[in-house]
Amino acid sequence: MSADIQKFAEGLADRAGAVIKPYFRHNVGVIDKADDSPVTIADRNAETAIRDLIEERFPEHGIFGEEHGVKEGNGIHMWVLDPIDGTRSFICGAPWFGTLIAYLENQEPVIGVLDVPMMGERWVGSAEGTTYNGEFCQVRSGVVFEEASLFTTDYDLFDDDQKAAFDRVKSQVKCIRYGTDCYAYALLASGHIDLVIEAGLKPYDAMALVPVIKGAGGIVTGWNGEDVDLEWDGRIIAAATIELHEKALSLLNQY
Amino acid sequence: MSADIQKFAEGLADRAGAVIKPYFRHNVGVIDKADDSPVTIADRNAETAIRDLIEERFPEHGIFGEEHGVKEGNGIHMWVLDPIDGTRSFICGAPWFGTLIAYLENQEPVIGVLDVPMMGERWVGSAEGTTYNGEFCQVRSGVVFEEASLFTTDYDLFDDDQKAAFDRVKSQVKCIRYGTDCYAYALLASGHIDLVIEAGLKPYDAMALVPVIKGAGGIVTGWNGEDVDLEWDGRIIAAATIELHEKALSLLNQY
Repeated sequence: MSADIQKFAEGLADRAGAVIKPYFRHNVGVIDKADDSPVTIADRNAETAIRDLIEERFPEHGIFGEEHGVKEGNGIHMWVLDPIDGTRSFICGAPWFGTLIAYLENQEPVIGVLDVPMMGERWVGSAEGTTYNGEFCQVRSGVVFEEASLFTTDYDLFDDDQKAAFDRVKSQVKCIRYGTDCYAYALLASGHIDLVIEAGLKPYDAMALVPVIKGAGGIVTGWNGEDVDLEWDGRIIAAATIELHEKALSLLNQY
Repeated sequence: MSADIQKFAEGLADRAGAVIKPYFRHNVGVIDKADDSPVTIADRNAETAIRDLIEERFPEHGIFGEEHGVKEGNGIHMWVLDPIDGTRSFICGAPWFGTLIAYLENQEPVIGVLDVPMMGERWVGSAEGTTYNGEFCQVRSGVVFEEASLFTTDYDLFDDDQKAAFDRVKSQVKCIRYGTDCYAYALLASGHIDLVIEAGLKPYDAMALVPVIKGAGGIVTGWNGEDVDLEWDGRIIAAATIELHEKALSLLNQY
């Protein structure tokens, strides 16, 4: 069953990509105030297309999407969707935005798809592991904190306390990079970087990341070490190893 | 002759890409202290390969590369090379690093190649215009300053005065994105974004960008409006239109 669901989840990503692609780099920056922006249309149309497929196949499943809100289901099975994670990248013609699809059982994300349609790259995480374009991938180990690479999308998204916390981590790692949205988590799952720290995320930004990171052997929690679930506060830390995670958590929470 | 040189310059980018590709995402983050890092090896080997091609075809031309320094030539024709612009992106497995190749006549950059080998994207600028994967491309017009998208690679690369100047621009535009290295200039040349502002660049980071931006109808200068040439101070502003350029320059230089 799980393999069937996973295949179905990948089919949803295929469908979303097919809807989104024609809008990419087609006047998305020039917004006619009278109409919705192309990115909004792409996002909404892709979510509608995915929801239709889910409702047809699994009418009893719940659905929570960025654009069209919550459809209550049986309380056991739920899909959490973000067709375009990285809206600003999309608007600016940067092809590393992603489609995020999560499947939850009893509120726990058990399958995650992180698809990058314009770059032909896909990560799929589950209890069986995480694959990158069909091949199993792993986080890397053996990188000490002082040699670690840290990613975040936008420093300006932090409030002042969060900036101070983030700066404590940043000051001790080797390399910091910006501007990646979900792609940073994909790089972590594939063993290319070591830490991602962000705040202000919504459940649809994060649910799909959990199986992808965990399936690759990494750790993903809130800033207090708590699970990233539907009730969590939007502050996230993903790490390649327990050691990096512990050290980063202690720096984030050091006053 | 210019078309021949341009074709030759593109051949150099092909060669660099062939050398670089096998190193990408192959343990580049795990550095054995006893040896050079894979990114250094890739960068250096690619530059050697390009230099060999230039010396064979144009033994009288000067060459200035990031890795192997300056070869004095006839003082008229010169190549300025950066096989991997975006070293930190490369190290982190992010495929938007680029190969920059500039051809100068009498110290003026007249042909620029901005190649993104892992993504199959290439911009080539000259007096004839700028092409994206073989098709002419143009900057966009009609975006007012308050709606503009601004890119920079890394805010931390600015000193305090530069941060204050950048903040004055940032506070008045709509959207700011980070972490793109040379790819930001490519997005500007293709009409997807409006402004790029950076500091601390070297000539080999910038010479190839000049024909690409100008050929697409954009403006590229230093922060005082001066030409970006071999003597310039490393602070750069690229803009899609004269109006955006003037406004950004006035904000950068407002005390």
